[in-house]
Amino acid sequence: MTFKTKLKLIIEDNTSKLGKFFDLFIQSFIVLSLLSFSIETLPNIESRVKEFLNAFELFTVIIFTIEYLLRLWVSDKKTKFIFSFYGVIDLFAILPFYLSFGIDLRSIRVFRLIRLFRLFKMLRFNDAIQNFVWALKSIKEELILYFIISSFLIFLSAVGIYYFENPVQPEVFKSVFHSAWWAIATLTTVGYGDIYPITAGGKIFTSFILIIGLGVVAVPTGLIASAFSKTKDDKDK
Amino acid sequence: MTFKTKLKLIIEDNTSKLGKFFDLFIQSFIVLSLLSFSIETLPNIESRVKEFLNAFELFTVIIFTIEYLLRLWVSDKKTKFIFSFYGVIDLFAILPFYLSFGIDLRSIRVFRLIRLFRLFKMLRFNDAIQNFVWALKSIKEELILYFIISSFLIFLSAVGIYYFENPVQPEVFKSVFHSAWWAIATLTTVGYGDIYPITAGGKIFTSFILIIGLGVVAVPTGLIASAFSKTKDDKDK
Amino acid sequence: MTFKTKLKLIIEDNTSKLGKFFDLFIQSFIVLSLLSFSIETLPNIESRVKEFLNAFELFTVIIFTIEYLLRLWVSDKKTKFIFSFYGVIDLFAILPFYLSFGIDLRSIRVFRLIRLFRLFKMLRFNDAIQNFVWALKSIKEELILYFIISSFLIFLSAVGIYYFENPVQPEVFKSVFHSAWWAIATLTTVGYGDIYPITAGGKIFTSFILIIGLGVVAVPTGLIASAFSKTKDDKDK
Amino acid sequence: MTFKTKLKLIIEDNTSKLGKFFDLFIQSFIVLSLLSFSIETLPNIESRVKEFLNAFELFTVIIFTIEYLLRLWVSDKKTKFIFSFYGVIDLFAILPFYLSFGIDLRSIRVFRLIRLFRLFKMLRFNDAIQNFVWALKSIKEELILYFIISSFLIFLSAVGIYYFENPVQPEVFKSVFHSAWWAIATLTTVGYGDIYPITAGGKIFTSFILIIGLGVVAVPTGLIASAFSKTKDDKDK
Repeated sequence: MTFKTKLKLIIEDNTSKLGKFFDLFIQSFIVLSLLSFSIETLPNIESRVKEFLNAFELFTVIIFTIEYLLRLWVSDKKTKFIFSFYGVIDLFAILPFYLSFGIDLRSIRVFRLIRLFRLFKMLRFNDAIQNFVWALKSIKEELILYFIISSFLIFLSAVGIYYFENPVQPEVFKSVFHSAWWAIATLTTVGYGDIYPITAGGKIFTSFILIIGLGVVAVPTGLIASAFSKTKDDKDK
Repeated sequence: MTFKTKLKLIIEDNTSKLGKFFDLFIQSFIVLSLLSFSIETLPNIESRVKEFLNAFELFTVIIFTIEYLLRLWVSDKKTKFIFSFYGVIDLFAILPFYLSFGIDLRSIRVFRLIRLFRLFKMLRFNDAIQNFVWALKSIKEELILYFIISSFLIFLSAVGIYYFENPVQPEVFKSVFHSAWWAIATLTTVGYGDIYPITAGGKIFTSFILIIGLGVVAVPTGLIASAFSKTKDDKDK
Repeated sequence: MTFKTKLKLIIEDNTSKLGKFFDLFIQSFIVLSLLSFSIETLPNIESRVKEFLNAFELFTVIIFTIEYLLRLWVSDKKTKFIFSFYGVIDLFAILPFYLSFGIDLRSIRVFRLIRLFRLFKMLRFNDAIQNFVWALKSIKEELILYFIISSFLIFLSAVGIYYFENPVQPEVFKSVFHSAWWAIATLTTVGYGDIYPITAGGKIFTSFILIIGLGVVAVPTGLIASAFSKTKDDKDK
Repeated sequence: MTFKTKLKLIIEDNTSKLGKFFDLFIQSFIVLSLLSFSIETLPNIESRVKEFLNAFELFTVIIFTIEYLLRLWVSDKKTKFIFSFYGVIDLFAILPFYLSFGIDLRSIRVFRLIRLFRLFKMLRFNDAIQNFVWALKSIKEELILYFIISSFLIFLSAVGIYYFENPVQPEVFKSVFHSAWWAIATLTTVGYGDIYPITAGGKIFTSFILIIGLGVVAVPTGLIASAFSKTKDDKDK
């Protein structure tokens, strides 16, 4: 067994001890890298911390670059890997850094966001999320139906409340679009309290919409939960 | 096959290629028409945009009028179509425009609302919503029960909180009706924060009402979800 | 068949035409009486409306008194009826009025509340609510368990948030009792916004409590819904 | 049967009459002790009440000490009892009191918190909670999956809203961590109203996150509820 074959087993197979260690190592770096990304957004961080974060970012990019090159090297079909889902994500996770040489592009917001692709690197290691996606696919039709009914309900709620509240609160319920924000925040029962009806008509209308809305919200809840337990039962068999 | 028979197939049957295209065409116009309706409610829109929306509205009405006349022409029983559910909706979707000639009725709020009937034109193209309605019908009795129990609970909550909070917050918990608004916003867990108890008694009362209320909310959630999956299972068989 | 026997059939049996009419008549008066009760709580009602409500109240009491006397007359065992659940409720629904002669007790809040017993008169006509109660009884044990776990969780949340937030917001998170109010409003996801954590520790603690709490809230939801559909299935068979 | 054997039956077995009484006695003291703990946190309590609470605390500690010594005496393996789960909890429930002699450690917050271990003393008497834990264990894997997906969603929501809202509300959406607090309060539909999007982009983003989020929240709800009813069915058989 050549060195390359051995390496291929470690990198692409996560059943061996070394393979598991490699996976855990990369996963830890993804999490740490995302944590570092979050810390950078904190206002008033000391320059010492900033320097450390920059150094850590450099280190992370090196690790991820080595990982990318290794994966490329051990893959049987190079071009296929490069244009595969995970190949593209692995590249995007390190690309922003290399593109920022010369000009400091890191200050550009959108550029920093590309680093978030590292989150999707996690998908490779996570069967659980793929199971979840599979369960969702099995009820695709129902979810689309739910989406249509919800859109219907949200639009009707938005227009209704607009006609009740706009004359009294023109600055809050400015348009049907502003009312749609209210409709979503209300039907999902979030209710921030930034926008709510004050007229008697608006309150009665909201009451009816809420009683109907809870029924609509109930649909996907039940569907997803049952799809999920079915997926689980199938796996158990 | 005469031209009329061909047209009838396109308009009334959505399995052929041209029929599907016709459906999609009308659906797109419904969505665009509702979007235009929403944009009109935006405050401070430029006169240029307003002119464009007016022109688009004219165009939409022409399209819907042609659709209406075509449907009328190809239908076997004219009178039956005119007084059918969809026939009436199709008429109401264009009527406000024709009635507004001479006097500008479009400024009258209620008149503009009639244009919303276009939303219900969508029903014709949507099996999903009809399935949903069918699932609801199968648990009609239970939903009525839920409505009665909820009304019971809301009324009791409203009276209870009124007696606790009215002496301390007479401006907020003005009457049992104002308290009912609180009861609905609380039991659906929206909780805008515009009205809430501040007395110890009111808070303890709210706690009990909430613990009971979550159970009541649970009833329709489970019922609708199970009715829905039964409907789905029946369809699969 | 004597007049008394005929009357007994009308009053106690709701399958005949006249019996149904009698039931509907009493039910309507209960609803109107509760509506009148609610209207009376409105601030600044005109004296004319007040006079009408008083007259209506008198009329209602007469109707309910006649109903009570008729039920007493046609019942086979008088004493049993007087001390039965519905007998006591029927008496309490009219008692406050008769007790208020001489002194005007109607201004005393608690006295007016007794009129609410009329709501419970509705129970006699409502099989639905009794089915609901029956479903609840079948999962009595589980509901008690849920109540214990919830109390556990609420107490722990209250103490936890008290130690995080009290030093910073001593006026809001005054004591463990005030914190318990926060715990209930948060775990039921009502979130009025009158009381919430502002420290980093308090927010992290809240996040954990919420993630756990949603699981606890899920328990009775599922239990009641399944108990309810079981009760329904049993009835269908 | 010696006195020790008799006592052992009373203390360790809760099927006999005296055993049930002993259990109820200790449980009552736990509840009263926790109530006393809560009352102590009330601001401005009178010195008379404080003295009474101190006296009651002393009495409670004596009761719990006697209970601990009795349990130790009747246990077959002393060392095993001392280091068992319940042995440690029983010790911690009285330890803070004895450690506070000499110096008044009771004013130290953390020290007072240790008294909360008394809550866990309740576990011994509660089969219900252990059933609940058992149900949770049977869906351990799914709960971990849910936790991972939720973390994913919360992180993505936090970063997304940070980029939309930070430029406009730098004091509210200070960092990704502050945004994560928003994400949790929003996805659990608590919605305190202390932090919410005000930009059009932020609101549209929130709408999408909420529609997806409700689906994610649905997963554990269904899982726990079905695990719980399965556990119940198994017990019934």
